Amino acid sequence: MSFVSKSFLSFLLFVWVCGAMMAESITSPNGNLHLDFTVNTQGEPVYQLFYKGKAVVKPSKLGLELKDDPGLMSNFTLTGTETSTFDETWKPVWGEVAQIRNHYNELAVTLEQKAQNRNMIIRFRLYNDGLGFRYEFPLQRNLNYFIVTEEHTQFAMTGDHLAFWIPGDYDTQEYDYIESKLSEIRGLMESAVTVNASQFVFSPTGVQTSLQMKTDDGIYINLHEAALVDYSCMHLNLDDNNLIFESWLTPDVLGNKAYMQAPSKTPWRTIIVSDDARDILASKLTLNLNEPCAYKDVSWIKPVKYIGVWWEMITGMKSWSYTDELLAMRFGENDYTKIKPNGRHAANNENVKRYIDFAAEHGMDQVLVEGWNEGWESWGGSSRDFVFDFVTPYPDFDVKMLNDYARSKGVRLMMHHETSASVRNYERHLDKAYQFMADHGYNSVKSGYVGDIIPHGEHHYGQWMNNHYLYAVKKAAEYKICVNAHEAVRPTGLCRTYPNLIGNESARGTEFEPYDGNKPFHTTLLPFTRLIGGPMDYTPGIFDICLTFLNRENHGQINTTLAKQLALYVTLYSPLQMAADLPESYERHLDAFQFIKDVAVDWDDSKYLEAEPGDYITVARKAKGTGNWFVGGITDENARVSTFTLDFLEPGKEYVATLYADAKDADYEKNPTAYQIKKGIVTNKTKISVKMARSGGFALSLIEAVGVDKKAVKKWK
Amino acid sequence: MSFVSKSFLSFLLFVWVCGAMMAESITSPNGNLHLDFTVNTQGEPVYQLFYKGKAVVKPSKLGLELKDDPGLMSNFTLTGTETSTFDETWKPVWGEVAQIRNHYNELAVTLEQKAQNRNMIIRFRLYNDGLGFRYEFPLQRNLNYFIVTEEHTQFAMTGDHLAFWIPGDYDTQEYDYIESKLSEIRGLMESAVTVNASQFVFSPTGVQTSLQMKTDDGIYINLHEAALVDYSCMHLNLDDNNLIFESWLTPDVLGNKAYMQAPSKTPWRTIIVSDDARDILASKLTLNLNEPCAYKDVSWIKPVKYIGVWWEMITGMKSWSYTDELLAMRFGENDYTKIKPNGRHAANNENVKRYIDFAAEHGMDQVLVEGWNEGWESWGGSSRDFVFDFVTPYPDFDVKMLNDYARSKGVRLMMHHETSASVRNYERHLDKAYQFMADHGYNSVKSGYVGDIIPHGEHHYGQWMNNHYLYAVKKAAEYKICVNAHEAVRPTGLCRTYPNLIGNESARGTEFEPYDGNKPFHTTLLPFTRLIGGPMDYTPGIFDICLTFLNRENHGQINTTLAKQLALYVTLYSPLQMAADLPESYERHLDAFQFIKDVAVDWDDSKYLEAEPGDYITVARKAKGTGNWFVGGITDENARVSTFTLDFLEPGKEYVATLYADAKDADYEKNPTAYQIKKGIVTNKTKISVKMARSGGFALSLIEAVGVDKKAVKKWK
Repeated sequence: MSFVSKSFLSFLLFVWVCGAMMAESITSPNGNLHLDFTVNTQGEPVYQLFYKGKAVVKPSKLGLELKDDPGLMSNFTLTGTETSTFDETWKPVWGEVAQIRNHYNELAVTLEQKAQNRNMIIRFRLYNDGLGFRYEFPLQRNLNYFIVTEEHTQFAMTGDHLAFWIPGDYDTQEYDYIESKLSEIRGLMESAVTVNASQFVFSPTGVQTSLQMKTDDGIYINLHEAALVDYSCMHLNLDDNNLIFESWLTPDVLGNKAYMQAPSKTPWRTIIVSDDARDILASKLTLNLNEPCAYKDVSWIKPVKYIGVWWEMITGMKSWSYTDELLAMRFGENDYTKIKPNGRHAANNENVKRYIDFAAEHGMDQVLVEGWNEGWESWGGSSRDFVFDFVTPYPDFDVKMLNDYARSKGVRLMMHHETSASVRNYERHLDKAYQFMADHGYNSVKSGYVGDIIPHGEHHYGQWMNNHYLYAVKKAAEYKICVNAHEAVRPTGLCRTYPNLIGNESARGTEFEPYDGNKPFHTTLLPFTRLIGGPMDYTPGIFDICLTFLNRENHGQINTTLAKQLALYVTLYSPLQMAADLPESYERHLDAFQFIKDVAVDWDDSKYLEAEPGDYITVARKAKGTGNWFVGGITDENARVSTFTLDFLEPGKEYVATLYADAKDADYEKNPTAYQIKKGIVTNKTKISVKMARSGGFALSLIEAVGVDKKAVKKWK
Repeated sequence: MSFVSKSFLSFLLFVWVCGAMMAESITSPNGNLHLDFTVNTQGEPVYQLFYKGKAVVKPSKLGLELKDDPGLMSNFTLTGTETSTFDETWKPVWGEVAQIRNHYNELAVTLEQKAQNRNMIIRFRLYNDGLGFRYEFPLQRNLNYFIVTEEHTQFAMTGDHLAFWIPGDYDTQEYDYIESKLSEIRGLMESAVTVNASQFVFSPTGVQTSLQMKTDDGIYINLHEAALVDYSCMHLNLDDNNLIFESWLTPDVLGNKAYMQAPSKTPWRTIIVSDDARDILASKLTLNLNEPCAYKDVSWIKPVKYIGVWWEMITGMKSWSYTDELLAMRFGENDYTKIKPNGRHAANNENVKRYIDFAAEHGMDQVLVEGWNEGWESWGGSSRDFVFDFVTPYPDFDVKMLNDYARSKGVRLMMHHETSASVRNYERHLDKAYQFMADHGYNSVKSGYVGDIIPHGEHHYGQWMNNHYLYAVKKAAEYKICVNAHEAVRPTGLCRTYPNLIGNESARGTEFEPYDGNKPFHTTLLPFTRLIGGPMDYTPGIFDICLTFLNRENHGQINTTLAKQLALYVTLYSPLQMAADLPESYERHLDAFQFIKDVAVDWDDSKYLEAEPGDYITVARKAKGTGNWFVGGITDENARVSTFTLDFLEPGKEYVATLYADAKDADYEKNPTAYQIKKGIVTNKTKISVKMARSGGFALSLIEAVGVDKKAVKKWK
């Protein structure tokens, strides 16, 4: 610690002590983080956070505003303080590492409002990699039912930090990230709000979590929440005069933000801090703040690598719907066998078998099929209610035959439930829909919530819907089904407790590439933002970067090189990985496709080698239950060279390295599909240096060299 | 027809013809009713209705306002006209009569909006007892999804009629009726709106249907709706300058009134007309406008006479809840076996067995038990969500033992599902709850929707909830369960299509008597208003009029005599009749209770002998499958003598008549429990004259005299 920052700290503490009564304090196990808590003269709870002696969060108030009630904002007296230490190591069902250490020092303060004769507890958990805290409401006579009209949790920033943000929105996170100073957010908001099927922006300085920031003196700060259960999703609203973020919850249709019953608690509010960007990516704080696994038997939960009848509809080449004829709109009123097909229905027996054959040939676990069920002709529109029943296939989709065919080849079909955000209809059919899956051998479902929520006026991220998403996941577990929910609320580490939640969207995925496109730096940010809460079904692996198959003018182009698409399988951690392109696209590049076939979807270890939000990420991961490693590296719109040593490999062992890199003349705009593949024998002493094109990347597989022909594979040069 | 009215009619027709193009017309089968329809110069649909040559509805506009759309209000061209006649006789599963004639002349007009290249149909059905009409939206390209922001169906009255009304409200009908001129509604509205657990009054001149009116020249007009399916409930708003009623639909939380998809249709709007009040009560128009029975097997649907563990809680003597201790509020978090009981829990094994014994001894079919399941300690409040699971009994209620005990005595328990209006929670548990009933031998459920609706902002009478009520009834049919839904939307004859809907509340029932009380004329109005749509679970039969058992000061008193309570079993038709008082109350008056034991709950025939809304009703009914008749008569706050001949009895046959009448000195305020019982042999020649006390009444049973000892029973004098 430098003299400057020492004196700075002393100065702060001086102000602090004079400003109010003595502060309660804890430090992180390694001493890097320090938390002070006090109740000021107005009886308002106040905390601040220091990292290596420097303030990262200035004195910030805590409290909740209640409906028809003085609220839980002020007039508090500190009546109890408890500190404790916790240290355990647990094994996730699936993940980036085989085991996770959950080590923190805890401070729990009991705050009493004498006038109301009631109290609440604020519990702080300080980890080496950050802080988590939440409000708790014990069972008591004078705080029974209550309605939260707003939570006023402050995060007072110490300066005009660099931030990587998307607009705060009650219904979507499918925005491109903006890189700007905090003070610039207001000016950039309007241009940041692009069109979405359902959206509700609430403030010119409102942003989503997880929010990644960087201070001028090189400290990385990440704000998010953990264990979002029976509460509404938190956004952040910036007071850009004072650079203070304050929690902004998602309202229900009446403007209420959470309906509570004591005893209860809020989700954890999290602040991950480090002066090394790689620590942010490696942090397990969000998972650690969630409850242990709720299921006894988890043997049925398996990571999945899949392909799908999907990209051809996303790109507009084919359709989800079976016909273009005018139909009786209400479900079940049409006899599809008597209706003229539109000839563009992708989910037909022949096409699906083609995908199954490809999956079987190349070792993919599952085949997603969208548009398999009746209703797609009229699934949109604000009057929709009973659109799908989730068990009635189109006449050209033979559920039994296709599942039998798939199983005979060691492949499974993946179910698709587009709810059209008609949630009551989905819940009414949920049991039958899951039973239908079980009966036909499906064990995972991709669900979707496109459009404004029904019941009308509710939002995708409100308490009502958050309650639904978890209901669907828990009920799926009764049928041993894994869920990958799109357009659902962003994850907050709940996959630790409910590991059958194997995927979510909640961000701008590959589906945007053919049209508006995603910025070259998009995937260098997702691990710092969206993935802080849990894995994303980003659906990488587009090889036909220029979408040549579309044969149309001015169609979009994917804003990456082909090699970067490969790297994403490693840099974007997920137990659910799709090879999103068409089989024919892969058949044109089987040498590159080999990496997608080889790469693992579950890991014993992960090492972040290089990282800078918005610029680049390089990570090495050890495949579950093997000695093999896979490395991925990506860069933003700037070309760069990634250099690292394979010192994570087992000393003395030899590995066959296969590098999939951008060709010398590759460029995401001019020459995106130019790649080169290099093979060689490496050890933990080998140094690797790879040039990445603009929005390029590389993938590297390191397979234990057991019985390899040394003539065939030379030493790495 | 008098000269005056003839010329009046000619005059009207003159105006009519000059005012627009020639009108389309139909008359009722008996010629009493005449309907004219035309499209005026603005392209607005207009209808008017005549009864015996007199206008009962003046020229009234028809149309619907749509969201983000020019609407279906004007610029219509009449492009098609179809007239037809229909005549069939059908047998209801249960009812006031064994068979019902459905005989009408129909006019269907197709109206096109050329500019939008779309059309709608208005279908009129003219019966001898009234008019029904609805809007229909055929499948077409240019009218697919649409949102109704308001329906503008007018009912232009011909004068300042006398009306019997309750305030228009989106959430309740539990109001006392007001008798006033139409022009006086505005001035009386504020005093008419009494407090309810959930209420939303929308206009100072808004009233509910069914609305009963009487013109100065003695014509009775009744406005209501039939077949309310997938649409919001209609209220009436009065333009009291022009005396024009207009439809006012129940909005959803966004203010939208109905979400539609073509092909679809609105409910029927009904106008029942007669110059004899008895015809209004005898009208089957509402049932006839509903679809035939939707079930193949209806053998499991049975009318029910029941008692219940209920009145002791309603009167505040006992409690639904098991404990007064502070509990963890969320369902399932409490171990009730370890919690101190409050000692006032009525739904306990011992007490329920007492009711079962009484039911068995006196031939009651079922015993309702409320407060049997966990959750009543915290079922209220706006934060409630998961309050009940509908399958977990309190520790002092042994579901299996009590059902076995009941069945061993030929009695069934009746299930109770208070949803606390948390509708998502109820639907999530519905299948398990119904299965639980089937497993334990329950075949009927009383459901409740007390409090504001969850999802928040929805109303009891909106399309969203109407959709739910019918969903619950249809699903109940899958389990062969009959439903008696309280606080649900008012009935509109759906019991014809779904006869397992054996009861509804949707009006002010006996439960109000111990407190605010019901006006003496209340039950003389219900058959003219609330019962036009279907039967009501009014729960009559209170013998302890003065609630002596309460031993408390200033408690309420039932505003009827004891004899009137007996009459209600005949005057308030329902296939579901409760004997609502405590067993001990009946044991003190077993002679009077004999009528409740004898009276039927299903009928082959009904004859309305005397009727005047707000004053009196006398009706005779023939018990299903027997030759026995039961007569009931009631009066309002004025004493009166009811006189009639038993000419409905089979000629030549003798019957044992037992009359339960008010004692000479009976009075609903001063001496309500004074009654007299008279027996005698009667024939179809016998004249009956009965004095009814103020708010009094009488009940008369007429049992075929087969093998009766003529010495024991003398001739009637």
